[in-house]
Amino acid sequence: MIGSNTIRVVLNTYAYTRKVFYHARSRQLNDTVSKLLSSKKEKSVNKDVDEDAKTILKVPRGTRDYHPQQMKIREDVFRNIIDSFKQHGATTIDTPVMELTTLLREKYGEDSKLIYELKEHENEDLLALRYDLTVPFARYISQNKISAMKRYHIGKVYRLDSPKMTRGRYREFYQCDFDIAGAYDPMIPDAECVKILIEILDKLALGQYRVSINHRKLLDAIFTVCGVPAKIFRSLSSTIDKLDKIPWEVARNEMINERGLSPEIADKIWSYVQLHGNVELIDRLRKDSQLISEKLAVEALHDLELLFRYLKLFNVTDKVVFDLKLARGLDYYTGVIFEAILTEYQYNPQLDDDQIAMGSIAGGGRYDELVQKIDPKQRRVPCVGISIGVERIFAIKEHQSLESKDQLKILSTEVYVASAEKHLLEERMKVCNFLWENGFQTEMAYRQNPKLLDQLQYCEKYHIGLCIIIGNTELNNGTVKIRHVNTREEFVIPREQLVEQLTLHLSKIRQR
Amino acid sequence: MIGSNTIRVVLNTYAYTRKVFYHARSRQLNDTVSKLLSSKKEKSVNKDVDEDAKTILKVPRGTRDYHPQQMKIREDVFRNIIDSFKQHGATTIDTPVMELTTLLREKYGEDSKLIYELKEHENEDLLALRYDLTVPFARYISQNKISAMKRYHIGKVYRLDSPKMTRGRYREFYQCDFDIAGAYDPMIPDAECVKILIEILDKLALGQYRVSINHRKLLDAIFTVCGVPAKIFRSLSSTIDKLDKIPWEVARNEMINERGLSPEIADKIWSYVQLHGNVELIDRLRKDSQLISEKLAVEALHDLELLFRYLKLFNVTDKVVFDLKLARGLDYYTGVIFEAILTEYQYNPQLDDDQIAMGSIAGGGRYDELVQKIDPKQRRVPCVGISIGVERIFAIKEHQSLESKDQLKILSTEVYVASAEKHLLEERMKVCNFLWENGFQTEMAYRQNPKLLDQLQYCEKYHIGLCIIIGNTELNNGTVKIRHVNTREEFVIPREQLVEQLTLHLSKIRQR
Repeated sequence: MIGSNTIRVVLNTYAYTRKVFYHARSRQLNDTVSKLLSSKKEKSVNKDVDEDAKTILKVPRGTRDYHPQQMKIREDVFRNIIDSFKQHGATTIDTPVMELTTLLREKYGEDSKLIYELKEHENEDLLALRYDLTVPFARYISQNKISAMKRYHIGKVYRLDSPKMTRGRYREFYQCDFDIAGAYDPMIPDAECVKILIEILDKLALGQYRVSINHRKLLDAIFTVCGVPAKIFRSLSSTIDKLDKIPWEVARNEMINERGLSPEIADKIWSYVQLHGNVELIDRLRKDSQLISEKLAVEALHDLELLFRYLKLFNVTDKVVFDLKLARGLDYYTGVIFEAILTEYQYNPQLDDDQIAMGSIAGGGRYDELVQKIDPKQRRVPCVGISIGVERIFAIKEHQSLESKDQLKILSTEVYVASAEKHLLEERMKVCNFLWENGFQTEMAYRQNPKLLDQLQYCEKYHIGLCIIIGNTELNNGTVKIRHVNTREEFVIPREQLVEQLTLHLSKIRQR
Repeated sequence: MIGSNTIRVVLNTYAYTRKVFYHARSRQLNDTVSKLLSSKKEKSVNKDVDEDAKTILKVPRGTRDYHPQQMKIREDVFRNIIDSFKQHGATTIDTPVMELTTLLREKYGEDSKLIYELKEHENEDLLALRYDLTVPFARYISQNKISAMKRYHIGKVYRLDSPKMTRGRYREFYQCDFDIAGAYDPMIPDAECVKILIEILDKLALGQYRVSINHRKLLDAIFTVCGVPAKIFRSLSSTIDKLDKIPWEVARNEMINERGLSPEIADKIWSYVQLHGNVELIDRLRKDSQLISEKLAVEALHDLELLFRYLKLFNVTDKVVFDLKLARGLDYYTGVIFEAILTEYQYNPQLDDDQIAMGSIAGGGRYDELVQKIDPKQRRVPCVGISIGVERIFAIKEHQSLESKDQLKILSTEVYVASAEKHLLEERMKVCNFLWENGFQTEMAYRQNPKLLDQLQYCEKYHIGLCIIIGNTELNNGTVKIRHVNTREEFVIPREQLVEQLTLHLSKIRQR
């Protein structure tokens, strides 16, 4: 476990300014990660193949294979994430990759067009690939009449997006979700979600980050105060949500030309959404008599005050920012919303389009009405949760692994059974079988008469610590030779001591 | 790890007869497993919902949710399987859930109609959900120009079948595959595949089983000798493959009426495919001068002789049967084929259709031409592998878990932080936070003032070993109370000793 002291969190919430200055380290990281992501793309999408076979030898657009080295990194990331979810008492469930299309419709606002449908079949329900893990969770809660549940779910989700692999945007990608369903006292589960998110980001050691926090009800109150018609609240949220990636002027134009707002309304919105800070901003907003005349604003500020109070008890206020431009794209949020941003990888106007917006790696919030909307009896089960977008995390961990001197050991094999002489296949098989039955991670060459050099090179390539070498001399003397692959030391031991001697030599290697 | 001695393998390969007698235990097991599978079906497909919402509150036909208890069992099964794969030096990869439809076509013989296609999109490749993990593996090998690889892959696959959940047949289901790609000396990797399969079945302790072995070239030689036209070899294999599930008379009719064979040819085929036994059957077939005049038969018998020799060195011949009616449905096999059958759950003519054929839980074989068929340069990479169908294994393990007295602990939580008095939420939060930061698996109630009884009941329900109780007395005295949930013993300790005392009490609980 990596302690939080290894994270260079230099974020000062007081001095925090929205404008991000170009600096060398950030640029270099962005470049490397972009290269990693796009090399992956080239590798998996278009290998140099004959023209006529070109349609076969590729993966679908926006998807990719994971190679063994990548799987090793992925497994480590998942293990870290799952350990935290479990530490906080979550169970896990799994749901089908496809859901009824009727379930998914009208849940994602403007993004609903990205739902990936399956081919229609006679007498069968229309099906689509799941867009996230949240709507399937709400369906699960409703269908099984559950009133309270804390669960995590790790699974692939699908979006028929224009894939931008260099930005970590795939059509098939993993989400790691943790949600708390149930009617509880305000902000207690919400605070735990933020706490877990921060624990995970600290453990993963991805570099500087902050967690932005806002409240949907506060946004709605602001929109009301600014004179925005209620029917465009959600689509306006999508515009606001882009303020991390587009300059204000672009967003302003969109508000005026696409959403039909007047310049005055747009500018008044800007006077609010550019605000950010810490808990003191809550007090400042409370002095805004126009805003505070809205019931929703009072409720939101009360929630946020409680949340910041609990986050202080959880010792994480230095990682969070109250940020009024955080809106989150999805329709279903109803309360507190949050988003984790890697500040070393965030929006930089000097980088081209393919390199921006790597920053957001997790988000979440409260969605109190989604189960009710789905449930045939309108049963209400309030929920709050976080969703971690791990593809970008994988890319960063790959980058760190390439930079590091420690070699990635992708094989578990600890002992290799080799021979220097011919006609000893069956003897190698016997030794292997003996070692398997005694629980050792063991391999041998699948050849009658492999060359010793090839066998040793395999051990070196895959970082296998020990090699057992058998020859006719050893067979006649009832011995075997144990070789340390790294140091090339060799030890001849009686064959009947094989298990204990191997155990001993392996523990020596592990201590190094 | 469960030793092989816990498996009651009473299979006598000499006395083995195809006819399966009804016996009480087998019937009872079949019934329970069928019930388990079908209750799952009812649960997940048709909850009692209002008529108009019925279309929403279900999972797609042939799919299911996994509940926390099932996930616990699933994770245990996967862990056992993965441990074995890793012990034999396999890496792992992952591929997209969808592949180009062109890749999947013409790879599965008669089953190609079961391929699950996605909705067509303009300017996009036609896509389908993967049917198995073998063709994607061959695509991966070819696309990445790999000449040798030992990998496992665990993932969901999709078949647009008429789902029979009571028989463990789903449209979405997991496969666990282990494959060895590469040009090696004959039968060495093949023997290791069988060895691994047997290791896994022993560890999982699913009851009696056998592994049937046959050879595609031997079947082809038999078909030739019997006078079958070459063009129906593969479709005839599908008929032969069903002999575990349908009586000979039904298969004979299918051969005559659907495949267009004469009764004489059909009966001659039967004279071969009813044969089964051990390594001695190889010698018996070698005396069949008509068969042995076929080159393919000579090659197959040579392979099988080697394989049985290696399996003897691997100490597993008591689990395998040379069975000439084993054919395997899929088109791509070219050499040795195998299948693992749970003999307590196998075909029984006295049970109705929904209860038969639970037996086969794993299969595999050699497919030397699949990569070549896909590769644009016809590069040949011989492969052999096994595929474990885990849905049936999950059902059996669930049955075992229900029968067992040991309660399934689905939460990792080891310490619960409770209070008996009001207004102590923030104190509980502080203690929780302290325990999280010290690595304890900790939970608390998400309420301002929870009832002590509710908190203790939660601990009992989820088998949480320890409960920390804080009240105003403890706060004033700088102490906390540790309660053992099971025995109800309580210990008051100084708060500064919390970490060491908890560690001590937890180790006591684990020893029980």
